Amino acid sequence: MKLWSVEQKKYTSIDNKKYETLFTLANGYRGLRGQLEFTKLGQKGNFIAGIFDKSSAQVTEIVNLQDPILLNIYIDDEIIDMEQCKVLAFNRRLSMLEGVLYTAIELETRKGKIINLKCERFVSRNNVHRWAAKYEIVPVNFTGKVFFESVIDGTVTNSSQDPMNLAKHFNVDEIFDVKPGIGLKSSTFDKKISAVETTRLLADNDFGNIFKSRKYNMLAEKAREVYSSILTQGELYTVYKLGVSFTSRDKIKNITEESKKELDAFTVDGYEEEKEAHKAVWQSIWNDIDIEIHGDDEAQVGIRFNLYQLASSAYEGDEKISIAAKGLHGEGYKGHIFWDTETFMLPFFIYTRPKVAKALLMYRYNTLQGARKNAEISGFKGARYPWESADEGLEVTPKWGFDYDGKPVRIWTGDEEFHINSDITFAIFEYYRATGDKDFLINYGLEILLDTTKFWQSRVEYNKKEDRYEINGVIGPDEFHEHVDNNVFTNFLAKWSIKKALDLVQWIKKEDALVLKKLCNKLSLNELDFKAWETIEKKMYIPTSKDGKLIEQFEGYFNMPSIEITKFDENGMPEWPDFKGLKIAETQLIKQADVVQLMIMLGEEFSDNVKKENYKYYEKRTMHKSSLSPSMYSIMGITVGDTHNAYKYFMKTVLTDLKDNQGNTDFGIHSASNGGSWQTAIMGFGGLSVDKDEVLNLKPWIPKHWDEMNFNINWRKTRIYVSIRQDKIVVKATNSSKVKIYNDEYNLKKDEEITVTR
Amino acid sequence: MKLWSVEQKKYTSIDNKKYETLFTLANGYRGLRGQLEFTKLGQKGNFIAGIFDKSSAQVTEIVNLQDPILLNIYIDDEIIDMEQCKVLAFNRRLSMLEGVLYTAIELETRKGKIINLKCERFVSRNNVHRWAAKYEIVPVNFTGKVFFESVIDGTVTNSSQDPMNLAKHFNVDEIFDVKPGIGLKSSTFDKKISAVETTRLLADNDFGNIFKSRKYNMLAEKAREVYSSILTQGELYTVYKLGVSFTSRDKIKNITEESKKELDAFTVDGYEEEKEAHKAVWQSIWNDIDIEIHGDDEAQVGIRFNLYQLASSAYEGDEKISIAAKGLHGEGYKGHIFWDTETFMLPFFIYTRPKVAKALLMYRYNTLQGARKNAEISGFKGARYPWESADEGLEVTPKWGFDYDGKPVRIWTGDEEFHINSDITFAIFEYYRATGDKDFLINYGLEILLDTTKFWQSRVEYNKKEDRYEINGVIGPDEFHEHVDNNVFTNFLAKWSIKKALDLVQWIKKEDALVLKKLCNKLSLNELDFKAWETIEKKMYIPTSKDGKLIEQFEGYFNMPSIEITKFDENGMPEWPDFKGLKIAETQLIKQADVVQLMIMLGEEFSDNVKKENYKYYEKRTMHKSSLSPSMYSIMGITVGDTHNAYKYFMKTVLTDLKDNQGNTDFGIHSASNGGSWQTAIMGFGGLSVDKDEVLNLKPWIPKHWDEMNFNINWRKTRIYVSIRQDKIVVKATNSSKVKIYNDEYNLKKDEEITVTR
Repeated sequence: MKLWSVEQKKYTSIDNKKYETLFTLANGYRGLRGQLEFTKLGQKGNFIAGIFDKSSAQVTEIVNLQDPILLNIYIDDEIIDMEQCKVLAFNRRLSMLEGVLYTAIELETRKGKIINLKCERFVSRNNVHRWAAKYEIVPVNFTGKVFFESVIDGTVTNSSQDPMNLAKHFNVDEIFDVKPGIGLKSSTFDKKISAVETTRLLADNDFGNIFKSRKYNMLAEKAREVYSSILTQGELYTVYKLGVSFTSRDKIKNITEESKKELDAFTVDGYEEEKEAHKAVWQSIWNDIDIEIHGDDEAQVGIRFNLYQLASSAYEGDEKISIAAKGLHGEGYKGHIFWDTETFMLPFFIYTRPKVAKALLMYRYNTLQGARKNAEISGFKGARYPWESADEGLEVTPKWGFDYDGKPVRIWTGDEEFHINSDITFAIFEYYRATGDKDFLINYGLEILLDTTKFWQSRVEYNKKEDRYEINGVIGPDEFHEHVDNNVFTNFLAKWSIKKALDLVQWIKKEDALVLKKLCNKLSLNELDFKAWETIEKKMYIPTSKDGKLIEQFEGYFNMPSIEITKFDENGMPEWPDFKGLKIAETQLIKQADVVQLMIMLGEEFSDNVKKENYKYYEKRTMHKSSLSPSMYSIMGITVGDTHNAYKYFMKTVLTDLKDNQGNTDFGIHSASNGGSWQTAIMGFGGLSVDKDEVLNLKPWIPKHWDEMNFNINWRKTRIYVSIRQDKIVVKATNSSKVKIYNDEYNLKKDEEITVTR
Repeated sequence: MKLWSVEQKKYTSIDNKKYETLFTLANGYRGLRGQLEFTKLGQKGNFIAGIFDKSSAQVTEIVNLQDPILLNIYIDDEIIDMEQCKVLAFNRRLSMLEGVLYTAIELETRKGKIINLKCERFVSRNNVHRWAAKYEIVPVNFTGKVFFESVIDGTVTNSSQDPMNLAKHFNVDEIFDVKPGIGLKSSTFDKKISAVETTRLLADNDFGNIFKSRKYNMLAEKAREVYSSILTQGELYTVYKLGVSFTSRDKIKNITEESKKELDAFTVDGYEEEKEAHKAVWQSIWNDIDIEIHGDDEAQVGIRFNLYQLASSAYEGDEKISIAAKGLHGEGYKGHIFWDTETFMLPFFIYTRPKVAKALLMYRYNTLQGARKNAEISGFKGARYPWESADEGLEVTPKWGFDYDGKPVRIWTGDEEFHINSDITFAIFEYYRATGDKDFLINYGLEILLDTTKFWQSRVEYNKKEDRYEINGVIGPDEFHEHVDNNVFTNFLAKWSIKKALDLVQWIKKEDALVLKKLCNKLSLNELDFKAWETIEKKMYIPTSKDGKLIEQFEGYFNMPSIEITKFDENGMPEWPDFKGLKIAETQLIKQADVVQLMIMLGEEFSDNVKKENYKYYEKRTMHKSSLSPSMYSIMGITVGDTHNAYKYFMKTVLTDLKDNQGNTDFGIHSASNGGSWQTAIMGFGGLSVDKDEVLNLKPWIPKHWDEMNFNINWRKTRIYVSIRQDKIVVKATNSSKVKIYNDEYNLKKDEEITVTR
């Protein structure tokens, strides 16, 4: 169990928010932060994917909905509360294997009553509308009255830790008695999206119900039901809290009635049955996603934590939602969706859970309308995906932030970070390449590709003097440098994407000409556009060093003063060098992988030598001021044969949240780090890549102290099992497949295991 | 200062409720529990005297109104919270001299920001509608953004610690922006009594206002204003929160408008000016009430604490309110008024602050209508004061309670504890005797006396066989024994009261015959009634032992098995003896002073020998299971020359709340103990009594380790200063007066000091 668990062994209230994030239970449909029922300290969170609202907030944000979790236990007039009782025993444990959060505490009240509590909670993956908690209670040294108070709290706001920007995003429409059970229905202010939470307490022992009397009432924005009970010293009592959630996004007629019906159905099924079904789903997810690391328990637990959180953050049931930068785990980044999803998280889903990957890509298709609006507003054509995206695909990046002195600072990413368009088209091809999902490509991917290319067509500038196309005034992944011209990451991916669009046009003409005809009509495209695209693609400017060996991150970058990193902190992370009186933006120091990331994403486009030279150059200049960065350097390091930082960067990424090494785990999980962890394991240590001929390559390298790393991936409807040891690699596939291992080609037969010694 | 202060030196959240009670700030008009702004743990309380409501509660209770105190301070996104910060320094101190609560804390946030806070709070005695807080803030190790969030919280409920009986007693009618400042208006459910709280934040340094931006909003039942500010490391900033409260009981047309106007006036006056005026009022109160004890610091602080709380709990400005058993300090006993006021607290006010005493007695006059209703409902005539009283004088004692197993238990006190009628008439004469306030006696006291006597007339039963009047089926002060016949405390006081009524009738006939005529008309009385009263008075049954030496607590008491107390706990309090299989009610064990209390109240009616014999007899049988009991035995012990328990019982009473020796200080102050403390000091150690000739007697005795005890009292418009030493007593009066000291009569000349050596 140890290798499947994240544990909290000591209670300290100042860590509550962090553990609430780590212990968030999510099923893609919704996330419930892991708040402990028995404390008032922390930051509640009930997020249902896709429910956004702006109203009084600065920008549209994910709504922190009414909280259904609260259960207060009173012994006489004393509330069981971590801060008001003596904590005699404490342990919380997230079983990643089961998707169940376990809490075991023993508390002594001020009057000396000792209560032992064993609690469980899960958010069902079997039925995404259900969640439940179980409480096993032993009155250790008393017999007497105990009250159970179940609450649905509708007073929740967003940004409750930020008093100037605190915002309430829903109206409490209805509080109702389910007799027994309680319900609270809300609706968002802007779009009137309604959400209903219903819960019910059940308590049994051998003789049935142990509750003696019940009281229901509503208090302003809270629904409450209270039960009294007489508990006998030393006996074990079990109380269940069952919860059901529906929203108007579920396309059900009367969600209040449906919710009550479902609560009854859940009551009939019972807690244990639902829990078993939920665990079974998690078992099947683990069959798809697990990575085994032998010989390094911290890495083993760490990688599983990242896989668990990624898998928790998405499901295939809704094609109008995607994964936020902070998952369903907190309000950080306002629940917005960034390039993080396509470039960091999607590879995991593509190679392990392709159905979920498709749903995530469908989110982009379903927000094309917003992307078109973004282009139109800024005077361009086609589709410009937003740097920060919510429910509609409209740009929701805040225009202004505030610096430390309260002075407003203009935020430019929403205006200039155009590479998001190609990050999405990149992901479409990554998905298509691994799955061969032609249907998706034809019916959805193609339209995205054509319309984003149309945007590039309108966005590029022709430099007559140099006879080249340029993309000026942009921000690349390295956000230290704003308003730069010809950022290679942007230009190269745009060029690549235009080429892909042109290839696709040729292909679809043969495959299904009608589709293209209709799309040309819809998107106002014709052969002249395709001609123009060809020219742009050919003449796109890619700045390099004079000798052509080094890619120049953006035009003029090499002319800036070169300041190299020379010192590292105790974790091996770079320390700020002396700027010599310059601003960061005036130096070659960069925030995060930029050129290096490009060379990973489009690995097949760059020679080993180019990779090596650029890696060496940029590593000395990369401050890793984004959690997205170390994983990229880890992968590239292994690729070019520099493994000295690989493990360090890997662990840095894997432990981002477990060690809270960015200091902001309170506000949600680092989803991109979750994805970066998978990529480092599979593409770094596993050495997985796909070559120009679309053959799967494996060039594994694992840290010296690891005995073994095992994983499996999906490749074109075939599952490939890979086991890497220090001296050999063992591979097996569920269908006959071609694989290159350390550059040698092998033809795998169905279910036959081959071993390649190093 | 030490002898004027109650201090909390260490923060432990489980003690929050206790200290909130001890640090309650009250001015008679209202009480604000001493909650610390910087914690979410505790039990808020904002009580305005006279605002009661029943609605969904079991019985009418004092309303816990909207809370105006909350002030949250944020450093960036970190809230200053005792539980979420490291507590580097902590001290809270109630200055009883000034009526100001001081808090000094230094906290370190999780991110390492250290903030030093010095806070003050007072509830003005200069203007009862005003309260205010001051915050002196030093950012110890940072420069940066700080937010101040002021809240008026309308989500408050009563019994929030009791989930089955939790009740909301008001509707939030209006939340408004005072620009700057915020307001929240509520109204009770039953009688629509409205209360408005308005508050305003002000912040200044040498350059004026330090606030940079403001935000106002309302959240369901909360009003909020938030200010941002940039504070510089090491500098001192001062923020004031001014508060104003009005209710519809104040008989002002538009309380919302008045409240805004008053808030502006307060802003103009300023915090410091109001604080000075408030302190000046407290100084004048201390001139009236202080008791100095030299040579025993614990006793000194302890007695002052009791005087302070008593003086805080009442004022002369409202004749429709009285002091609840738990003061204005908590929800305990639901804010009900018991005999505690008349028999335990009133002597303090009568002898130190007679105007307040009058207002408290007027409360009984103003609730006569309710008392008449109580008599009528139970089939009797005249006025029966309620055992538990709220705003109308109707009986509000709960009819049912629950035992530990949740079984309903009938509560009989509201049906049977009739002595409350005579406790009130006793207090009227106590007041009249000490003040000579004829006007009160004629216009108010007389009516109470006649109407309560009319009740006795209808309530007594004539025992033909014995030719005597009996009062059967009652509960005396000793509540261990219910449904008893002829409880002496009840019968004797009724008899005494009837006699007083008859005397008064004779006197008023001469003094102002018209008054009597009108009252006879109003109360349907005539000479035949007076005749009947005479007979009843003469033939009232007072059970005694056969030899007449011992008073029999109630008829048949001496026939019950006598079980004596033989063991005492480490605090000298009795331990339960072996009941020998009996129920308590079947033994002579009693809960609290009963006969002994009678002999204190009507000391002039009993000989020294009778006092001594009864004291000896009952002391062995009194379990002191009420905080009202030890003080009575302390006084009587000194009176009869048995001083061995006097100091112990005195300290037990004095420290009731400071040491929380009843274990329920959380729920309010023990007001009767406050009064009992004064009585023990003045009537016990001071040996103050009034003899049959209405001459003031002093027979002091002070504990061996005391050097000196000094106090002053009001006696018929004269202030008498008394200083007691081990070897002598020094007395002075502001007018020529007659005083007996150790049975010798002295004629004091105005302002002349006399010394009597022991």
